Amino acid sequence: MAERLNSADTALRARAARVIPGGMWGHLNAANLPEGYPQFFRRAEGCRLWDVDGNQVVDFMCSWGPIVLGHHHPAVDAAARRQAALGSTMNGPAEVMVELAEQLTAMLPAADWCLFEKNGTDATTACVTIARAGTGRRKVLAARGSYHGAAPWCSPSLVGVTAEDRAHIIHYDYGDLASVAAAMAEAGDDLAGVLVAAFRHDMARELEMPTRAFAQGLRALCDARGAALILDDVRAGFRLHLGGSWEAYGVRPDFSAWSKAIANGYALSAVTGAEKWRDAASRVFTTGSFWAEATSMAAALATLRELQRVDGPALMQAMGERLRTGLSMLAARYDVPVRHSGPAQMPLMLFEGDADFRRGNAFCAAALRAGAYFHPKHNMFLSCAHGAADIDRGLEAAEAGFRAVSGM
Amino acid sequence: MAERLNSADTALRARAARVIPGGMWGHLNAANLPEGYPQFFRRAEGCRLWDVDGNQVVDFMCSWGPIVLGHHHPAVDAAARRQAALGSTMNGPAEVMVELAEQLTAMLPAADWCLFEKNGTDATTACVTIARAGTGRRKVLAARGSYHGAAPWCSPSLVGVTAEDRAHIIHYDYGDLASVAAAMAEAGDDLAGVLVAAFRHDMARELEMPTRAFAQGLRALCDARGAALILDDVRAGFRLHLGGSWEAYGVRPDFSAWSKAIANGYALSAVTGAEKWRDAASRVFTTGSFWAEATSMAAALATLRELQRVDGPALMQAMGERLRTGLSMLAARYDVPVRHSGPAQMPLMLFEGDADFRRGNAFCAAALRAGAYFHPKHNMFLSCAHGAADIDRGLEAAEAGFRAVSGM
Repeated sequence: MAERLNSADTALRARAARVIPGGMWGHLNAANLPEGYPQFFRRAEGCRLWDVDGNQVVDFMCSWGPIVLGHHHPAVDAAARRQAALGSTMNGPAEVMVELAEQLTAMLPAADWCLFEKNGTDATTACVTIARAGTGRRKVLAARGSYHGAAPWCSPSLVGVTAEDRAHIIHYDYGDLASVAAAMAEAGDDLAGVLVAAFRHDMARELEMPTRAFAQGLRALCDARGAALILDDVRAGFRLHLGGSWEAYGVRPDFSAWSKAIANGYALSAVTGAEKWRDAASRVFTTGSFWAEATSMAAALATLRELQRVDGPALMQAMGERLRTGLSMLAARYDVPVRHSGPAQMPLMLFEGDADFRRGNAFCAAALRAGAYFHPKHNMFLSCAHGAADIDRGLEAAEAGFRAVSGM
Repeated sequence: MAERLNSADTALRARAARVIPGGMWGHLNAANLPEGYPQFFRRAEGCRLWDVDGNQVVDFMCSWGPIVLGHHHPAVDAAARRQAALGSTMNGPAEVMVELAEQLTAMLPAADWCLFEKNGTDATTACVTIARAGTGRRKVLAARGSYHGAAPWCSPSLVGVTAEDRAHIIHYDYGDLASVAAAMAEAGDDLAGVLVAAFRHDMARELEMPTRAFAQGLRALCDARGAALILDDVRAGFRLHLGGSWEAYGVRPDFSAWSKAIANGYALSAVTGAEKWRDAASRVFTTGSFWAEATSMAAALATLRELQRVDGPALMQAMGERLRTGLSMLAARYDVPVRHSGPAQMPLMLFEGDADFRRGNAFCAAALRAGAYFHPKHNMFLSCAHGAADIDRGLEAAEAGFRAVSGM
């Protein structure tokens, strides 16, 4: 197999090491990725990505979620350019903010109003703040291990975080109503709300869809306590169901937090909520210098309309299933047992008996050299730009991965 | 005087009232502005702004800070377009992130490293987290009334905020070293850092520049306690001094928080810091879905280079002084006593004996009808797009404002 070029990436990493602590921050630090994964990227088109050394891959991370229609989707980029030519960050919003809020409230049955922000963390933080404002209570339940952002109150890291930052967070176990009831008992009459991810997508373990009984039970428990059911749809939003990820279970949250896929890579997040919380949402102070940036809103409006037009979730599901079926066939052929989990649009493949991810890393490293960018332990993402030929190209690369693992 | 058209704005406000709580959030809510101020904007060019009814104004708010070179600056927009044509939100950063970090560390004497984020609040929050990580201590001092963002730990509003969110924040009075020493004594051996705005720019009161004695005294007090001096340069950054706002006082902070003007309206923020904090900065977990967005970084790089090329602070200072001189002459002519405060690049004009802002509001409302967008109680912003003719056009409009106030 040809050596993968990486001299430009290596040189950039050396420069980055001097001016960025650790070379890169957070989830995008390539130090957390299998060997050979590039840190820096030069170009993107559809579901293809080129690193700074010119290596091309079929991409199954979609920028960790934002790219839902494929890079450089013409309708989205044209809408963004049209708005940018008028004005983007002005002394107040442009008309497109209202159009986007109307689009969201029309497409999401649980949504009567919207607020816009920049980060998923801004959205989850605003949900918690509004729940506290609306109830006059303080305690918020969150599932142990769920990711809800990188602010001190919810960060997966405790470095630089104080105990008080989390004083009013009580944990339950995802999918376990008894643990929710116990956490609610601990909150007593001080329960403001319950945060829940659209599905259990903790890193480095099997993904887990909620059962209908869990989703409906959570809704009933919140109703009984007058607490807000806060659906964190930042990661899954607009990939599983265009009416909100829990619409399939017949459950409407009090608020939902959105970001990632909302604008196909333009920076935007949103909170949508039910009528009864409108007053509380109008009383909290939540703002940012770029939260009315019109370009990102024009991109979001075009993204959501295109997702409706092509039925994005169904497209991504079909291609995700094609990928999963192909991976299963290859796994059987090479006699390497794997476990698939999660929705087909956001799949994860784990190797049996691979607690240290030795196989997963070897699979990914070999597949990368053969032209596909997979992730060994975080859910991956499909986009509407993934066609059958792209999936098949990805499977070709995956075969190199299975070949590498088969001898281990 | 001709009536100002506002039918399109009125219609949009009615639509917004249905889908956005309170019609608009945060600092951009026009309900907090003088009568007749539009909520929605259609177009922007240089220092001119058109609302959705087509009314044109010379703008003295610059989108509350971000617009530092003027809307649609050709070098900035071209750099952003070039990067966007390659890729923006990818699986990792583009080369431009390193170039931007190298630019910032080269131009800022206090900066040895950078982190990038999206909101000013992300930057101030990261500074506090890094200070805690680096010292292993918890207490952070902040000036009473200073704005450092809209997260629960620092928001100017307490709605939905818990006491624990602020458990480790201790207040001092801006400019008063004795109050800093007292707050430090209260923090005892648990002092992580001191947050300080580049100048005192609290809303609805005179702006106040720090004295050299205060800036240097704060540095010495932090040094004596091993605490981080955190300069919040989000609002003033790149308008007062391209080496950092306290470079003029000979004071180098441990970290600085940047946003607003850094990318001429593209969404970006940054933390820069000194070598001794690099390890702590590499250990905290701080991230967001769009924090590596390459388009905003390309815009920032072009913005900073252009600010250096034209000596932006000097340009804005000269035009701000022209504005202030003109306003003073008009105030004398109409016999309306006013008080100017703050740096000329970020000026504020208050009317004497106007605690309820009746004159300030009347002045602004009349000036708006005559074609200039001023603010009665928040510092305003100049940009490098403000030329002498724009200032003079603004002064013409201001004369209408003084005429309105002169009879009050």
